Amino acid sequence: MPQAKQFRLAEIADLLGAKLEGDGDIIISGLSPLSSAGEGQLSFLSNPTYTSQLANCQASAVILAEKSANSFSGNRLIAQNPYVTFAYATQLFAREDAVVAGIHPTASIAASATLAEDVSIEANVVIGEGATIGAGSRIGAGAFIGRDCQLGESVRIHPNVVLYHDVTLGDRVIIHSTSVIGADGFGFAFDGERSVKIAQLGGVRIGNDVEIGAASTIDRGAMLDTIIGDGVKIDNQVQIGHNCVIGKHTIICGCAALAGSVTVGEYCIFGGGSGAVGHITVADRVQVSAMALLSKSVTEAGMISSGTLASPTPEWKRNALRFQQLDSIAKRLKNLESKADS
Amino acid sequence: MPQAKQFRLAEIADLLGAKLEGDGDIIISGLSPLSSAGEGQLSFLSNPTYTSQLANCQASAVILAEKSANSFSGNRLIAQNPYVTFAYATQLFAREDAVVAGIHPTASIAASATLAEDVSIEANVVIGEGATIGAGSRIGAGAFIGRDCQLGESVRIHPNVVLYHDVTLGDRVIIHSTSVIGADGFGFAFDGERSVKIAQLGGVRIGNDVEIGAASTIDRGAMLDTIIGDGVKIDNQVQIGHNCVIGKHTIICGCAALAGSVTVGEYCIFGGGSGAVGHITVADRVQVSAMALLSKSVTEAGMISSGTLASPTPEWKRNALRFQQLDSIAKRLKNLESKADS
Amino acid sequence: MPQAKQFRLAEIADLLGAKLEGDGDIIISGLSPLSSAGEGQLSFLSNPTYTSQLANCQASAVILAEKSANSFSGNRLIAQNPYVTFAYATQLFAREDAVVAGIHPTASIAASATLAEDVSIEANVVIGEGATIGAGSRIGAGAFIGRDCQLGESVRIHPNVVLYHDVTLGDRVIIHSTSVIGADGFGFAFDGERSVKIAQLGGVRIGNDVEIGAASTIDRGAMLDTIIGDGVKIDNQVQIGHNCVIGKHTIICGCAALAGSVTVGEYCIFGGGSGAVGHITVADRVQVSAMALLSKSVTEAGMISSGTLASPTPEWKRNALRFQQLDSIAKRLKNLESKADS
Repeated sequence: MPQAKQFRLAEIADLLGAKLEGDGDIIISGLSPLSSAGEGQLSFLSNPTYTSQLANCQASAVILAEKSANSFSGNRLIAQNPYVTFAYATQLFAREDAVVAGIHPTASIAASATLAEDVSIEANVVIGEGATIGAGSRIGAGAFIGRDCQLGESVRIHPNVVLYHDVTLGDRVIIHSTSVIGADGFGFAFDGERSVKIAQLGGVRIGNDVEIGAASTIDRGAMLDTIIGDGVKIDNQVQIGHNCVIGKHTIICGCAALAGSVTVGEYCIFGGGSGAVGHITVADRVQVSAMALLSKSVTEAGMISSGTLASPTPEWKRNALRFQQLDSIAKRLKNLESKADS
Repeated sequence: MPQAKQFRLAEIADLLGAKLEGDGDIIISGLSPLSSAGEGQLSFLSNPTYTSQLANCQASAVILAEKSANSFSGNRLIAQNPYVTFAYATQLFAREDAVVAGIHPTASIAASATLAEDVSIEANVVIGEGATIGAGSRIGAGAFIGRDCQLGESVRIHPNVVLYHDVTLGDRVIIHSTSVIGADGFGFAFDGERSVKIAQLGGVRIGNDVEIGAASTIDRGAMLDTIIGDGVKIDNQVQIGHNCVIGKHTIICGCAALAGSVTVGEYCIFGGGSGAVGHITVADRVQVSAMALLSKSVTEAGMISSGTLASPTPEWKRNALRFQQLDSIAKRLKNLESKADS
Repeated sequence: MPQAKQFRLAEIADLLGAKLEGDGDIIISGLSPLSSAGEGQLSFLSNPTYTSQLANCQASAVILAEKSANSFSGNRLIAQNPYVTFAYATQLFAREDAVVAGIHPTASIAASATLAEDVSIEANVVIGEGATIGAGSRIGAGAFIGRDCQLGESVRIHPNVVLYHDVTLGDRVIIHSTSVIGADGFGFAFDGERSVKIAQLGGVRIGNDVEIGAASTIDRGAMLDTIIGDGVKIDNQVQIGHNCVIGKHTIICGCAALAGSVTVGEYCIFGGGSGAVGHITVADRVQVSAMALLSKSVTEAGMISSGTLASPTPEWKRNALRFQQLDSIAKRLKNLESKADS
């Protein structure tokens, strides 16, 4: 196990650009939520709902906003945005495996591939003809990098990821295990009897600072490319159809699915399990609720939902059966209103 | 990078069986949608909605129907079904890696496996005892072919696919990366305290010309086999439970899921994210909308939907709360009607 | 192919603890449902709905309850819970590949990993520094076991599974192909411009007798661990967010998804494609219907549903449009009622 990391509190304050109030010499060796933090641990208060937990909090120090400073009597790191400062703090304590630059002897690398000098290529990796791997990048065990893929600098590909041919990744892209980028889009022309395959001739272009979770799939374009903008964050088991264009900094939560040719704006959030039918456009800063389905374009920022609320099944069933009569109910109501008016 | 493909237009007309109107000597080096096509590119018009785009289209040639021929003044390929002809055109321009027959030295192949002479077995492939790989088939890097699997001719298995034991694939089957065929169906008998595993003793049989997307899962049967008919097309992240039987030429879009023992007819379409509960039967030519759930059998061809339409969340919430009162609303309406009638 | 297994019926009765009525010397070589069973096959009756099938059943023997014994004239195995007895019977006939203890020469195993003597490590497996593999465990081809993972005894990891670092598995855990355990939870702090990654410092702890299907993902915790209790059964393509805590013996069907920090009780059942938003608590013995979404905590045992029933699309659309007016309908009804009362 890599040695657990340790920092003096003053050192952390310095690294995070936070104002230290208290004893800078105490040693911090990890992070924990307010309710479970103990000796040697740093915690944070971001959501004011939890302010009351500060009273009994056993953390050795807490990151919090100026306005909440008086609510905690222990060591404090004062930050403008405590949640963001906490995020940077987690990065200090990350215990990734040491990256050893070099190429594992079991890797199969095409002669025409171009690898920066300090890359790390792990066991059983396969890299195709003409592929380029940028400086500081790390390709996890069993990953497959197809022909002519271009990976930027400091890219992190986790084990068993597959990139089909002609996939381009920017710098600092992270792709988690078993995700597949660039498989054929789902395109067929029906000839009346059977489905004729439409060869998928486009590629996939992914910007800088994109993170893609585990077991997600982003299909290559049919003729043009599928495009994922800078800073987009995609969770696990997300499906992005061919020729989607996802705007910068959009967030797509787990199990969400976009059909083909969906154009999504910047700073959108697709909730878990949400979806969009094909060929629609979604404006900037649209937020789609969990398991909601967009079946037409959304032209303005705002939150969108569909579905019904959960209830005990017998109650739900009575209401769901009535849903089947809803048009008739509306008409009967209108009829009664006419009578009442006459 | 493989040399981009090029054809004379007359040659394409010939290969596609389309009628050439215009200059057969121009060189076509790719395909593009009407709106972005340029010099050297071939485009197509299938949906009449886009007819107006022909006026300014810069494509060197367009595939279109006889009746639309006059709408485009440039070179034309006249086809009865322009979309199908376009599909065949894409296949001309596909730039798959060259398939080099042979067995990569890192592959692990059981002594009792039978491989046709011209198969291509890529790096780190594992093939189990008794497996058979048909002529012209290609097994991508890191794929696992279990014991006694039988693969037909011209099968294409993409990297990191897993076939458990006793999976049978017909000819020309394509399976995209990380899909898993033949994992155990989800079967347990509850003994009042814990779930006792029901060993899954069946296999999976997949017909000819089936394509399966990336990250999809098709479970092996409990006692009998799970069966996928000829020409079925399955998108990414689809889940097919044990003992499903899918009729010929049915299409299952991304993230759709069928529970166990669902029998689906021929020429059905399951929309993205749609589902079916277990042990139901779906007639031929049923189309299920995106994210709809079938909770009972469907006996006639036609389109089926469930769910609600998306709306801005505050509006949606007001209506969703009223859904909880729907049975009461219906009863109160009936009560008022009785009063009005008396 | 491994030799099909065969048992005398008396031997099966003995192994299953069932009461034999009939000829104990007949040979049973497999299992089949009542409707398709033939010579040499054992079948079972659990659901009384199928009692009528016994009359024409061609099975050589049937497992059934005492009270149904007279409905079948052939050889019988009488059991208190025929479905559970059938489950144990399937285990007798399972034809898993022979497990050959040993380490495949293509495996890459860190020097500091600790492997029990009789483990089976298949082709191209990668095992990280400090990992421990318990007695009788089997790691399938192409699987990746991260640094400091601890696997109990008789664990079965199928091909191409990925365990990130610091994942702990109890005894007899089964993980099907391409599932990913311990990828980073989806945590970011938004700084007003971009999403800052929250390093995921927790691990994943999985109890004894847990089975996880193919292509499922269970994320590592942000600060504390994600926890899966003993006896939990998880189907294919399930997503479990960071810091979820799943109680013992809960069942999660295919494509279900839990967002982060969901606490689920014991003996719950999440239906296929169901979901839960983050930070909620679900009591013991709650059953969530297929594709239902829990958007708040559930405090009592019982069944929960959401959504609407499926209907033919034109009919559905009329009702779905009326759903958009539901709040107005309710108000208009109330208004009419007031008039009627006055």
